[in-house]
Amino acid sequence: MKKDLDLVNNYQKEMVLLGRSLALLSWDQETNMPKKGLKSRSETIAFLSGLAHEKFTSNEFYNAVKRLKKEKLSEDNNIMINKLYKEIEKSRKLPKEFVLELAKTTSLALEAWKEARNKKDFKIFQPHLEKIVALKIKQAKYLNLPGHIYNSLLDSFEEGMTVEKLKPAFENLKKRLIILSKKIRSTSTYKKQNLKLLKGEFPKEIQLELSNDVVKRIGLNEENSRIDFSEHPFSTKIGLDDVRITTNIRSSPMFSFGSSMHEAGHSLYELRLPIEHEYDILGDAPSHGLHESQSRFWENMIGRSKPFWKYYFPIFKKKFRINGNLDEWYKEVNEVKPGLIRIEGDEVHYFFHIILRFEIELGLIEGAIKVKDLPKIWNQKMKELLDVVPKDNKEGVLQDMHWSSGAFGYFPTYAIGTIYASQLYNALKKQNPDIEKDIENGDYSKIRAWLAKNIHKPGSKMLAEEIIKKACGEGLNSDIYVSYLTKKYSEIYKF
Amino acid sequence: MKKDLDLVNNYQKEMVLLGRSLALLSWDQETNMPKKGLKSRSETIAFLSGLAHEKFTSNEFYNAVKRLKKEKLSEDNNIMINKLYKEIEKSRKLPKEFVLELAKTTSLALEAWKEARNKKDFKIFQPHLEKIVALKIKQAKYLNLPGHIYNSLLDSFEEGMTVEKLKPAFENLKKRLIILSKKIRSTSTYKKQNLKLLKGEFPKEIQLELSNDVVKRIGLNEENSRIDFSEHPFSTKIGLDDVRITTNIRSSPMFSFGSSMHEAGHSLYELRLPIEHEYDILGDAPSHGLHESQSRFWENMIGRSKPFWKYYFPIFKKKFRINGNLDEWYKEVNEVKPGLIRIEGDEVHYFFHIILRFEIELGLIEGAIKVKDLPKIWNQKMKELLDVVPKDNKEGVLQDMHWSSGAFGYFPTYAIGTIYASQLYNALKKQNPDIEKDIENGDYSKIRAWLAKNIHKPGSKMLAEEIIKKACGEGLNSDIYVSYLTKKYSEIYKF
Repeated sequence: MKKDLDLVNNYQKEMVLLGRSLALLSWDQETNMPKKGLKSRSETIAFLSGLAHEKFTSNEFYNAVKRLKKEKLSEDNNIMINKLYKEIEKSRKLPKEFVLELAKTTSLALEAWKEARNKKDFKIFQPHLEKIVALKIKQAKYLNLPGHIYNSLLDSFEEGMTVEKLKPAFENLKKRLIILSKKIRSTSTYKKQNLKLLKGEFPKEIQLELSNDVVKRIGLNEENSRIDFSEHPFSTKIGLDDVRITTNIRSSPMFSFGSSMHEAGHSLYELRLPIEHEYDILGDAPSHGLHESQSRFWENMIGRSKPFWKYYFPIFKKKFRINGNLDEWYKEVNEVKPGLIRIEGDEVHYFFHIILRFEIELGLIEGAIKVKDLPKIWNQKMKELLDVVPKDNKEGVLQDMHWSSGAFGYFPTYAIGTIYASQLYNALKKQNPDIEKDIENGDYSKIRAWLAKNIHKPGSKMLAEEIIKKACGEGLNSDIYVSYLTKKYSEIYKF
Repeated sequence: MKKDLDLVNNYQKEMVLLGRSLALLSWDQETNMPKKGLKSRSETIAFLSGLAHEKFTSNEFYNAVKRLKKEKLSEDNNIMINKLYKEIEKSRKLPKEFVLELAKTTSLALEAWKEARNKKDFKIFQPHLEKIVALKIKQAKYLNLPGHIYNSLLDSFEEGMTVEKLKPAFENLKKRLIILSKKIRSTSTYKKQNLKLLKGEFPKEIQLELSNDVVKRIGLNEENSRIDFSEHPFSTKIGLDDVRITTNIRSSPMFSFGSSMHEAGHSLYELRLPIEHEYDILGDAPSHGLHESQSRFWENMIGRSKPFWKYYFPIFKKKFRINGNLDEWYKEVNEVKPGLIRIEGDEVHYFFHIILRFEIELGLIEGAIKVKDLPKIWNQKMKELLDVVPKDNKEGVLQDMHWSSGAFGYFPTYAIGTIYASQLYNALKKQNPDIEKDIENGDYSKIRAWLAKNIHKPGSKMLAEEIIKKACGEGLNSDIYVSYLTKKYSEIYKF
């Protein structure tokens, strides 16, 4: 048993070390790599990914895990072995030829998607997406989890989550948010709204200075993290005390500032995962949704709140010489306006972008929607949910790269994370009634400690929803999200 | 045979890809990594190095190479297999326990050296160095190359070079350079010399702008390279069209400028190595000395020459608002002055720092010198060769980290590279009598083409000295170096 456990731990450690190398190779590709380095970089990444895959799918590893499954182990080891067994079993259900075909298909599809997007021509992407959908249906059948066929895809990103749970929650949310959105849009405040303060001049250096400042307050520092530039902001973990976020500058200072808070939330989570599981599967987050709850918590629940701006607005006002007051600023950074682009969605409308994609993915996997009809269906749903219609497919069905990479089941985790974030803030406040005073003072130490204890520390010893249940007293509950939005925006839009 | 060749090429490719990953991990460690990332980084590097070592020493690889050695192969494959066979045989002569002991010893020694250096206390380092010397003697005996015992160590850095060849060349050089140094120091120009222009203000941004400019002229560009900051300048290759150099800013603008030219010389070589051998051993430089010849060529032969400054001084003068003329500037950047620190050595005295280390290494490996006597011997030799005496061991015997890492046989390659560089410039000028006009115009395209054809293209299909012989008509010839120095410095110091 000792020998098997050593082998399993050693394999996991090697996969973690390969993962760190890959994380650096990818980070560097987005931040530093000279343009012509791409060909070499792809080869290096493919090679190391291959090594990690070989380790994970090796018979030696599988057999040791299988033997350990029959042994009496410590509680943690028991969870670890069961988790590994489930993961390996899943990957072994996929024939090698299938995995290769999927890899080849998505690699070509990504290029086709880029071209289609540039040329605003869905037809270029269509045959690729058709192939991917067929493969994803095949994959779901191979994996064959209980319940809805889509569960097998969702589970890879959000273990334990099912269509049976998610669909009613999303339906409820959709119904209630449509009402909320209409209500907001019918107010005179909405009709008169017009960005003023956010239309000013915001020098790049000051934007960066403020992003650095808030990231530091959240809990990253120069000794364990860094901020660089990349086209799209992201966060990554290169080592135990080495997390990195990236940012970019847009005309609104809220882009760099807000996305830095978002990425810092991800990175803080990575820094606080259980160190005793540094080299095994329990040292990871249990799901994408829980990871996203950490970024959304800081970006939305903290970073768009009144107490937060009580601290930061005077600093912004001074640094950027803003001619306005806190209330005006707070209203502008929380401006609600239905738009075409998911990643630009406000708190109220972001969710519609997700439900749209979720409904389409379900339809595609169930066979009820055909790929060729997607542009039409997309635009219909946009009209229905957000009352806006894309003028072309680039700002419509071609806006996200997820489908080209075969990531069906990913989009819902954004909404799950956003809902969890509101539940977490709710629980935090109940347990710490004075917490907003801390936020007004720019002091997040208690919040950090609360998150560490309740969310970060378990690693993946529990499922995401179990962690939320333990921290908040209940699992996924979209009512809390709606209540939060209703209270906040009825104040801002006065209804 | 086809199968064996595929296996051997595949193993080599995997080692190259691991090498690239390791290069990025090390580059990032020196340029970007947050301080606390060190522990994780060391583990990641140790793991990937281990993988590469496993591949190289595997029986599968060795046996395929052995079988291929008996086959009739193409010319290139024949050279490659013989080279691989020699390398593997060498590494197989070292017992595994020996390799582990050496790794453990040097890892502890490096820390001890740092401490000893900080505390200026040789005693802290002494027992570690004694162990390393004993292990190096053991290593030389295991390898057991013909001739002097030191040949077995030298060969790892400068394949084909021997004490038998090197000692007389160095002796000759030493004798003639002592005379040259004395001559220079007896002139009235020397006695009156006093840096003025180089003592000005040199804003960091302009230093960097000029470093970037000269590096671009040498042949690197934004698409295949980048410049970053690190404590000590270095160059590395991350991929086929991805080379990187680092720099740092000191009070003299010549530090960043000169070291950037040096590192760009290394990187240009890496960019021009034969692409058809990208993934095998023939795509590397054949020796450290030949690599150093490329950096020294640009740093010294070009970067300290009068034609070079005819182009660059007017730019420096304008950018830095220098109050002086070309002759004064040329004299200052070529100031000769015996000093204590190797890496600060001028063209005339740099060599003495190498001969001192070479003689000590020979003595240690032969057993004629004891480690405990090193501080005394070091200072005696400094007095004898450079007429200066360190005030402590930090600026004396503890100044370089090479010995703590076990790199005996490395120092001579710096001198070999410097000598080769002078031979290359000599041959270049003979074959292109008008080349200095190009240099005066800041145009190095002909030089680049000449180096590519004569030095870079062969990769390691030939030994370093063979490449030099083919390019210059003869092998290592220190007379040319002395003639170059004598002509140049008799003009500057007027004797």
